[in-house]
Amino acid sequence: MAEQVHYAHPFDDDKLREECGVFGVIGVTDAASFVALGLHALQHRGQEAGGIVTYDPEGGFHQARRMGYVRDNFTSRDVMDTLPGTLGIGHVRYSTSGDKGPAVIRNVQPFFGEFAIGGAAIAHNGNITNAVALRRELIERGSIFQSSSDTECIIHLMARSMGRTLVDRMEDALRKVEGAFSVVAMTRTKLVGVRDPLGIRPLVVGRLGSGWVLASETCALDIVGADFLREVEPGEMVVISTDKGLESFFPFRPRKPRFCIFEHVYFSRPDSLIGGRSVYETREAIGIELAQEAPVDADLVCPVPDSGTPAAIGYARASGIPFGMGIIRNQYVGRTFIEPTEQIRNMGVRLKLNVNRALIQGKRVILVDDSVVRGTTSRKIKEMVLDAGAREVHFRIASPPTAWPCFYGVDTPNREKLLAANMSEEEMRSHLGVDSLRFITLDGLYRAVGEAGGRDPLSPRYCDACFSGDYPVAPADMLDQGFEMKTAAE
Amino acid sequence: MAEQVHYAHPFDDDKLREECGVFGVIGVTDAASFVALGLHALQHRGQEAGGIVTYDPEGGFHQARRMGYVRDNFTSRDVMDTLPGTLGIGHVRYSTSGDKGPAVIRNVQPFFGEFAIGGAAIAHNGNITNAVALRRELIERGSIFQSSSDTECIIHLMARSMGRTLVDRMEDALRKVEGAFSVVAMTRTKLVGVRDPLGIRPLVVGRLGSGWVLASETCALDIVGADFLREVEPGEMVVISTDKGLESFFPFRPRKPRFCIFEHVYFSRPDSLIGGRSVYETREAIGIELAQEAPVDADLVCPVPDSGTPAAIGYARASGIPFGMGIIRNQYVGRTFIEPTEQIRNMGVRLKLNVNRALIQGKRVILVDDSVVRGTTSRKIKEMVLDAGAREVHFRIASPPTAWPCFYGVDTPNREKLLAANMSEEEMRSHLGVDSLRFITLDGLYRAVGEAGGRDPLSPRYCDACFSGDYPVAPADMLDQGFEMKTAAE
Amino acid sequence: MAEQVHYAHPFDDDKLREECGVFGVIGVTDAASFVALGLHALQHRGQEAGGIVTYDPEGGFHQARRMGYVRDNFTSRDVMDTLPGTLGIGHVRYSTSGDKGPAVIRNVQPFFGEFAIGGAAIAHNGNITNAVALRRELIERGSIFQSSSDTECIIHLMARSMGRTLVDRMEDALRKVEGAFSVVAMTRTKLVGVRDPLGIRPLVVGRLGSGWVLASETCALDIVGADFLREVEPGEMVVISTDKGLESFFPFRPRKPRFCIFEHVYFSRPDSLIGGRSVYETREAIGIELAQEAPVDADLVCPVPDSGTPAAIGYARASGIPFGMGIIRNQYVGRTFIEPTEQIRNMGVRLKLNVNRALIQGKRVILVDDSVVRGTTSRKIKEMVLDAGAREVHFRIASPPTAWPCFYGVDTPNREKLLAANMSEEEMRSHLGVDSLRFITLDGLYRAVGEAGGRDPLSPRYCDACFSGDYPVAPADMLDQGFEMKTAAE
Amino acid sequence: MAEQVHYAHPFDDDKLREECGVFGVIGVTDAASFVALGLHALQHRGQEAGGIVTYDPEGGFHQARRMGYVRDNFTSRDVMDTLPGTLGIGHVRYSTSGDKGPAVIRNVQPFFGEFAIGGAAIAHNGNITNAVALRRELIERGSIFQSSSDTECIIHLMARSMGRTLVDRMEDALRKVEGAFSVVAMTRTKLVGVRDPLGIRPLVVGRLGSGWVLASETCALDIVGADFLREVEPGEMVVISTDKGLESFFPFRPRKPRFCIFEHVYFSRPDSLIGGRSVYETREAIGIELAQEAPVDADLVCPVPDSGTPAAIGYARASGIPFGMGIIRNQYVGRTFIEPTEQIRNMGVRLKLNVNRALIQGKRVILVDDSVVRGTTSRKIKEMVLDAGAREVHFRIASPPTAWPCFYGVDTPNREKLLAANMSEEEMRSHLGVDSLRFITLDGLYRAVGEAGGRDPLSPRYCDACFSGDYPVAPADMLDQGFEMKTAAE
Repeated sequence: MAEQVHYAHPFDDDKLREECGVFGVIGVTDAASFVALGLHALQHRGQEAGGIVTYDPEGGFHQARRMGYVRDNFTSRDVMDTLPGTLGIGHVRYSTSGDKGPAVIRNVQPFFGEFAIGGAAIAHNGNITNAVALRRELIERGSIFQSSSDTECIIHLMARSMGRTLVDRMEDALRKVEGAFSVVAMTRTKLVGVRDPLGIRPLVVGRLGSGWVLASETCALDIVGADFLREVEPGEMVVISTDKGLESFFPFRPRKPRFCIFEHVYFSRPDSLIGGRSVYETREAIGIELAQEAPVDADLVCPVPDSGTPAAIGYARASGIPFGMGIIRNQYVGRTFIEPTEQIRNMGVRLKLNVNRALIQGKRVILVDDSVVRGTTSRKIKEMVLDAGAREVHFRIASPPTAWPCFYGVDTPNREKLLAANMSEEEMRSHLGVDSLRFITLDGLYRAVGEAGGRDPLSPRYCDACFSGDYPVAPADMLDQGFEMKTAAE
Repeated sequence: MAEQVHYAHPFDDDKLREECGVFGVIGVTDAASFVALGLHALQHRGQEAGGIVTYDPEGGFHQARRMGYVRDNFTSRDVMDTLPGTLGIGHVRYSTSGDKGPAVIRNVQPFFGEFAIGGAAIAHNGNITNAVALRRELIERGSIFQSSSDTECIIHLMARSMGRTLVDRMEDALRKVEGAFSVVAMTRTKLVGVRDPLGIRPLVVGRLGSGWVLASETCALDIVGADFLREVEPGEMVVISTDKGLESFFPFRPRKPRFCIFEHVYFSRPDSLIGGRSVYETREAIGIELAQEAPVDADLVCPVPDSGTPAAIGYARASGIPFGMGIIRNQYVGRTFIEPTEQIRNMGVRLKLNVNRALIQGKRVILVDDSVVRGTTSRKIKEMVLDAGAREVHFRIASPPTAWPCFYGVDTPNREKLLAANMSEEEMRSHLGVDSLRFITLDGLYRAVGEAGGRDPLSPRYCDACFSGDYPVAPADMLDQGFEMKTAAE
Repeated sequence: MAEQVHYAHPFDDDKLREECGVFGVIGVTDAASFVALGLHALQHRGQEAGGIVTYDPEGGFHQARRMGYVRDNFTSRDVMDTLPGTLGIGHVRYSTSGDKGPAVIRNVQPFFGEFAIGGAAIAHNGNITNAVALRRELIERGSIFQSSSDTECIIHLMARSMGRTLVDRMEDALRKVEGAFSVVAMTRTKLVGVRDPLGIRPLVVGRLGSGWVLASETCALDIVGADFLREVEPGEMVVISTDKGLESFFPFRPRKPRFCIFEHVYFSRPDSLIGGRSVYETREAIGIELAQEAPVDADLVCPVPDSGTPAAIGYARASGIPFGMGIIRNQYVGRTFIEPTEQIRNMGVRLKLNVNRALIQGKRVILVDDSVVRGTTSRKIKEMVLDAGAREVHFRIASPPTAWPCFYGVDTPNREKLLAANMSEEEMRSHLGVDSLRFITLDGLYRAVGEAGGRDPLSPRYCDACFSGDYPVAPADMLDQGFEMKTAAE
Repeated sequence: MAEQVHYAHPFDDDKLREECGVFGVIGVTDAASFVALGLHALQHRGQEAGGIVTYDPEGGFHQARRMGYVRDNFTSRDVMDTLPGTLGIGHVRYSTSGDKGPAVIRNVQPFFGEFAIGGAAIAHNGNITNAVALRRELIERGSIFQSSSDTECIIHLMARSMGRTLVDRMEDALRKVEGAFSVVAMTRTKLVGVRDPLGIRPLVVGRLGSGWVLASETCALDIVGADFLREVEPGEMVVISTDKGLESFFPFRPRKPRFCIFEHVYFSRPDSLIGGRSVYETREAIGIELAQEAPVDADLVCPVPDSGTPAAIGYARASGIPFGMGIIRNQYVGRTFIEPTEQIRNMGVRLKLNVNRALIQGKRVILVDDSVVRGTTSRKIKEMVLDAGAREVHFRIASPPTAWPCFYGVDTPNREKLLAANMSEEEMRSHLGVDSLRFITLDGLYRAVGEAGGRDPLSPRYCDACFSGDYPVAPADMLDQGFEMKTAAE
């Protein structure tokens, strides 16, 4: 059903996109303001829409959901005054791509459900790989869905659980769910965080005075002034209340963790900590590794801003070639130009990036980017750089070729649109029209993120399905829809 | 949960208010435009919000729901273009009173549900008297409610029904429901109309070329150029499809009909037909009856506009006293002044009515109004008329004293706020400060609506619970909440 | 220049339309609220847009101007809090017709000007007949116009005046202006009201406690609880300050007054007083006169609502034929349906009016309307009435044939579109397709408004140019544009 | 007068702010789209509001003005379709600071005036230093101002000029104006660019196919695909028409140019060319110069993003100390959080910047920033860096101490709020609480921008009043208001 539709014209459709960020807080005055700040810090994980739910004993549960940025929707007194309470959770969400249909407010999280034993709200980062089947079954039994979101399944499973407490019901529900889920939820008195057994998506806990915070990344702890305590462990459920503090449960069958390696490469913010190390440093290390694996004689190492910058700095340092910002990003580009005219739409990448002609002219330039997805933007950047008078253009990519779609909460094009799924490295070089093109190897990437021995093919430490096709959870719904897994031959 | 809240400041809070109007159409090009026109004609039955659902084979179900008038929301190409299809239903809804909480878009009908056997939308005029109990039971079994509306129960009952077709499921669902319901619903191919066994609320069928129309009142047939066919009968379910035309079913145990007598007095539009007679004529007849029952020597018969006008015309004709519009209504008063300043709020009735001083001055004035609810407006009108120099003020009321709340789809104050529940006629006269006050008798009202013998106390033809306390359906939820029915003594 | 354009689709384009209402108040707390209330009471004089200017010693002048109804724009605390002060003026304005271009906020009054000797704001009801010439001359000398409104000339003439005080400058400016003007203006300390020497448009003064009010009509005094003092006299300038009270000046060469007779027929509200008599009573008298001039044998006298009602009551009383509301007006019709779909646009008059079939059927019906302009609506109403089964239809019109455009502040179609400018009475009857059509005579109208001897052709007491073509002020700009005055022969 | 007010809460109030960017184009299809793109590229010069005027022979002049970003206002078909034509100009504008009053749409440029000889529109970057006096005089003579903008004086001076052509009138007007002005204007057939005799603000010309472009910076040529032709020279007026091409005039008495040196340091975009050299390179050179003037032993050179980055790169290269992004900028910070709650407002700089803890910890850090204005942000950044565990913090500033306000189109705090106007360098270091603080010298800055010999005190090549107090044009209005120029002693 189409209702209150918002279209977005994505100018960044040549990037993989994290689909969500989650945040929760308990035991603070004006929880909603903290949630808003946390979501603002997590805005890079989802720019299409955001939502906040709070609870206060007098007024019950309160909810506000809006299309657009946190800073535009969740800062005015008008809105924030409707969200009283000392306990709250929030969610930011990325626009699903055009073919999945336009964005509607009904799909914006957190979702709320009133159960016989009280109400609960839930926000989810990840993707439930058996959501279609679960939904079908729930509808058969009389559940009515409000949204087309996979997350709503969790609420309905909770509604049908016989568990005595909401937390029991959540445990019940999540046991039926497959895929990636970092969940932040709340009841009237508890803040709950859960991570799937593989721990594909991140989730951290912090202390804020006598209160507690859950967040997708540590940068969201920093903004509210919370101290980083630890990561929620894969397969762990933390239940936090003001009286009992943090209680930890492990409701799922244990599995070897497989954290998403692309969080290191691109998704997470450079100032976040993962595994005790700053993402920025990891990216610099990727650049250093890349300089060793794929050196080239040149005059300038130039990042594709902003995501390529740390790797470019590392590459420049390791290679001794000067670092320079040959491409400038217009900081006033939003995610969308609403219904642009033909003329403006055609401008494409020029709305966002401009070449620093004087710096580039006559030089052999190494462009460092985080990844190549469709290759459309890479081609345009190459053209801009050549137009500006570069003598040679060499692409160095801080991740291996992206050849497989992600089914764990990242918006990926179909395989046929992934450049690396259809071309060899040399074909890609020729297609992009550059003097050389090199990706970091998967082993090199593992080394850069701290696995001195590279990737253990029998038991890899990370989920790297987008590079390797090795999916740690079978994507049940997609297999039903005809997706073909990698065969032994590939 | 509070979300997207709209407050209204009711200036007409001294009237009983119908809570809904419904409309549906099948077999026409651009169904949504017809629905919008029909809802516009039914706007007097609900001014707070409106919604339309349509279906077209390519795009599926489409929905738009908005706070405010039909003319402001459902006429622009922008909105109407999102509602394609040859089949559609719609709903207008009145603001629930302040103590029931602010209005939210989630509560706006039609409601839509996706079932295992396809989708359906439903719009409802009336009130389900066992909704609280049904809701409690449905939640126990795992249903998740989107709204606080009683109507949503029907959708959940349908979702849980084992019926093979949506129409079977609707029958199933409505059999569990008590109270008043005139329902218009749709599936992908069928338009359905149902009236509760007592037929408390109205519902009519019309033909529009080769298509069909369902509507709360005949005035909505007139606006779209449809021909009035007949009323949907109490307890009847009509199922209309383009291939089979209209099929009629009687799924409920038959009962003696009890149509709402207040539809004649106030709710329905004067140009609508009920029982083959125009509401205008009935109201004129009420005025004539009232002149005979309660004559008084005076110089001017003056209606309280606009609802008192036909009865005043009848009173003037029968009494021979000149008719004159001594009170003028400002036609630019909407239902609400949004968050008015103190000064403006205090203006109250003056924002809406002004006295025609020159006409009133020095005269003995008979004011004819349709009803007295709280009496607050009546007092203010009396003051305005006296300030303008009237010598005497006589109130004549076109309905009996309103002493009991309605539980069948009308917004009534609590009993303690109903003037007639707490005062004798003489006490009311004194409280209003007028020279005389007379209500039509219940028998007189029955005579005026066509029952020559007056009211048959053993088997009254109408629901007149608001006057008599004789409730044809026990208001289960209200009894649970402590409402006391009339005892034999009263 | 097009800027912030609002289109309106007029459903009432078969009426003459007053273009403005003005209101001012001094010496009260929260002047803006009073202005808003006054404008609300004057909304019938202009529904397109409204504006308010206030002054307070700390903040200076404040202004808010909006498209749409007063009740929608000037009641929220948000807006009203930006308009502090004890002195304020306001204006409501009618949409100029489509061919004059779309409505823009720049044209909304009051206009404000900062002069060397302080600021002033001005609001104007009427039309300056030499505005085009004045504007041309002012632009030659370096004035820059913000709007396309004729009223702005007054501000520029004031800016260029050498007068020592703002009131002197206003006097200076208005002496150069021809046509109809009822002006309400303000400086930092004074409220000023001026009426042109002919007194074509109305303007009244009232007392509100120790404060003062100026308004287009007395109904705007009633709503704020002010006492009617007197009319501002033709050619009079009243200057009101809290220290000196009301001072009266007569700056213009005296002329014999020519008040607009159409204010009696249609423009003014029935509850307003003009010349000591209620407009309602005058209209009733018109109906009585019309019954005597143009009797017909029939079964029902039916007004075309709402404006035809008082004359219909008079006609019914004088003729003895029963009065009945055979046509019902939908009270939820606004002035506009924004960008309606084709289907909705085609509904035309049905969106607004519906026939009370049961009342009309088989009857000989006299329809009483206030005027016939283009005749388009009259034809549609006749069709609706015949479709409903009327046996005969007789039109009786409460004004003479409208054969000439108004140049004094009323929106009139071009002469070629005025039915009466192009057809004889019999041709009109045949064009409308009714059994009989009769207009009140000009003499009859004069008698009804209180001139026992009818119209004095040598020195008529009213401006009746729209009926007679006898223009009391030569319309200079229009003559320049080729308009042809009535010749002796006509 | 307060009207349609928009408040902004500036989070960057510790920066000097360019107040405007201008753009114009002639001889292209759909000029408005090009203007929108150009303004988008110039958004860093003004984020509060923007406006576009176009002309087409059928519809005349068209205008749209909006608060907010270009990308949010000037990309939808809705708005752009109202701006047809092959000739257009536009303007972006920065919010004036709070004490100058809230922003209103009336102040948004371009301004338009209808003169006796036709219409013209004008957009202006700079500041007219005798605007108050001019305005007073114009009001004396009867001009009525629509805005409080200094630019409106130019339109009124043009209206009063006796010049035969609009271009003559513009020449006339600009001769009376003192201060800084880079003007882009248009008539029905001509695009005009003018730069004040000192050439304080930038203005460049480009070719776009057979059309022409004027823009504040070359980055706006790049985005529309125009070729850079040359800078408009100080004191030059270029008049461009499709038939005669570009004509050049020098209407003012010649003076030695004094281009704003701060455009190099901060205002202009790094990818723009000034004087044939990229701004990025100049900033790198400033960093190199700074490393030589003010070396310090440390572990990390860290820019304050984004404006400090190029200088930090230069500093790192010259010093050999590693470059690292120890401070991360949240790219989703807009200029404003609308009416933020107390809690959110207090977050201040944390909403925008976060420290990369892992990178900073235990290090001696050199922070490179472009300037210090009030010092408030610098203090907060220092605290964040120390909290993150830095061992030492050294500030290196890429401009000399900002000790004097700018009166030529830049928003500067009053002198008493400028840190450097009130403290010695050592006092500032102690106030900021850092281990060392060093500014580049004025001579060093001149060397970095290409003056090998440093600043010539007798005839400096740049306007450097903000550093030196040496104002090339006496700020007449400010002197009237009591501003004290630097004395010989200072």
